[in-house]
Amino acid sequence: MPESLPQSARTRVTREPQRGVYDRETIYKILDEGLVCHVGFTADDQTFVIPTMYARVGDAIYFHGSAASRMLRRVGEGVNVCVTVTLLDGLVLARSVFNHSMNYRSVVALGAATLVDSPTEKLEALRAFTEKILPGRWNDARQPNEQELKSTSILRLPLTEASAKVRVGPPLDDDADYSLRVWAGVVPLRLVAEAPIPDEKCDPSIPVPAYAARYTR
Amino acid sequence: MPESLPQSARTRVTREPQRGVYDRETIYKILDEGLVCHVGFTADDQTFVIPTMYARVGDAIYFHGSAASRMLRRVGEGVNVCVTVTLLDGLVLARSVFNHSMNYRSVVALGAATLVDSPTEKLEALRAFTEKILPGRWNDARQPNEQELKSTSILRLPLTEASAKVRVGPPLDDDADYSLRVWAGVVPLRLVAEAPIPDEKCDPSIPVPAYAARYTR
Repeated sequence: MPESLPQSARTRVTREPQRGVYDRETIYKILDEGLVCHVGFTADDQTFVIPTMYARVGDAIYFHGSAASRMLRRVGEGVNVCVTVTLLDGLVLARSVFNHSMNYRSVVALGAATLVDSPTEKLEALRAFTEKILPGRWNDARQPNEQELKSTSILRLPLTEASAKVRVGPPLDDDADYSLRVWAGVVPLRLVAEAPIPDEKCDPSIPVPAYAARYTR
Repeated sequence: MPESLPQSARTRVTREPQRGVYDRETIYKILDEGLVCHVGFTADDQTFVIPTMYARVGDAIYFHGSAASRMLRRVGEGVNVCVTVTLLDGLVLARSVFNHSMNYRSVVALGAATLVDSPTEKLEALRAFTEKILPGRWNDARQPNEQELKSTSILRLPLTEASAKVRVGPPLDDDADYSLRVWAGVVPLRLVAEAPIPDEKCDPSIPVPAYAARYTR
């Protein structure tokens, strides 16, 4: 695969084009860090946007189709979707309201998603969902049986048309505003885990696994 | 306005219906806590999902139209959109992979969004964007001038067709799995702010405002 994805008319970043990023490395890193994607699709002339779990495996994204039951009724040969992942990194406080912004990294991937039929591929996708978020969990938990695999809908979107948009760094104010006595800077934001809460029905002698006790993104 | 929104065929939660919530109070609380929404719309037979800032004011959502420049070309009488806000509250570790889940609160709002023309309404929306995230910032920063107001595109979506989906609490396993010696529970997740980073061009004698120094959601 090429190192950079082509800038199609549909994925080229037109608003704030200096924030557009097209190399696979950046795009994949953002996709691998995110926990939830937003899947957009159209049914009966209405656009729907549904949050769901996903994982990148090679040059494709797999996502839970269950969240998009409306879409699955008509998926057949593949349905046009937009999968968007957004990581929020900070609030950007400029001297003027107009130049306030956010630091973020986002990916928009377009294309036709298809239902995964093969049980082996389904299993690989489920494994990727789990291991991406909680490395080691797959081997600790009971793995899916045939019936569970059958009742799980997973969609696959090849990463052929995608772009990232990234804003980093301090506020950018108009020249005249730098003389204002207004505090300006960035408030960094981070998703953190708190102490794990054991299920009440969980035998207290079972140790908390490291991936839950010291969870970090 | 009624206390509960009607469950239209398009907003009724069909997958895991017990997670569906339709009262305005819950829906508005989620909308007010979120920092970023994902706006979905369709242009040239392709669905796009774009992250952008938003705020609820009364029974409407305002969001930055700049992020959806493709959409604005054709907005005219209003464009069908789906605005989705997702708050991630935790990872749910069940004894079986199949029953792994996430704790989350999300809102899906559907309808026709229209461009805001009135400068007064635009100003109110910008004020809501700012005050929602950083209460007090509006009066500290330089407020938008006429030119900036003119160059800002803001869309308004009335909250007439919306629903929330909420998952809370411990994992729910199949009866037979409770005897497995697998740790089960929840890893709570939270978006936190780190110490603010002053802009290098910011006079160090300007105190860091409380909303930046002790930012919490």
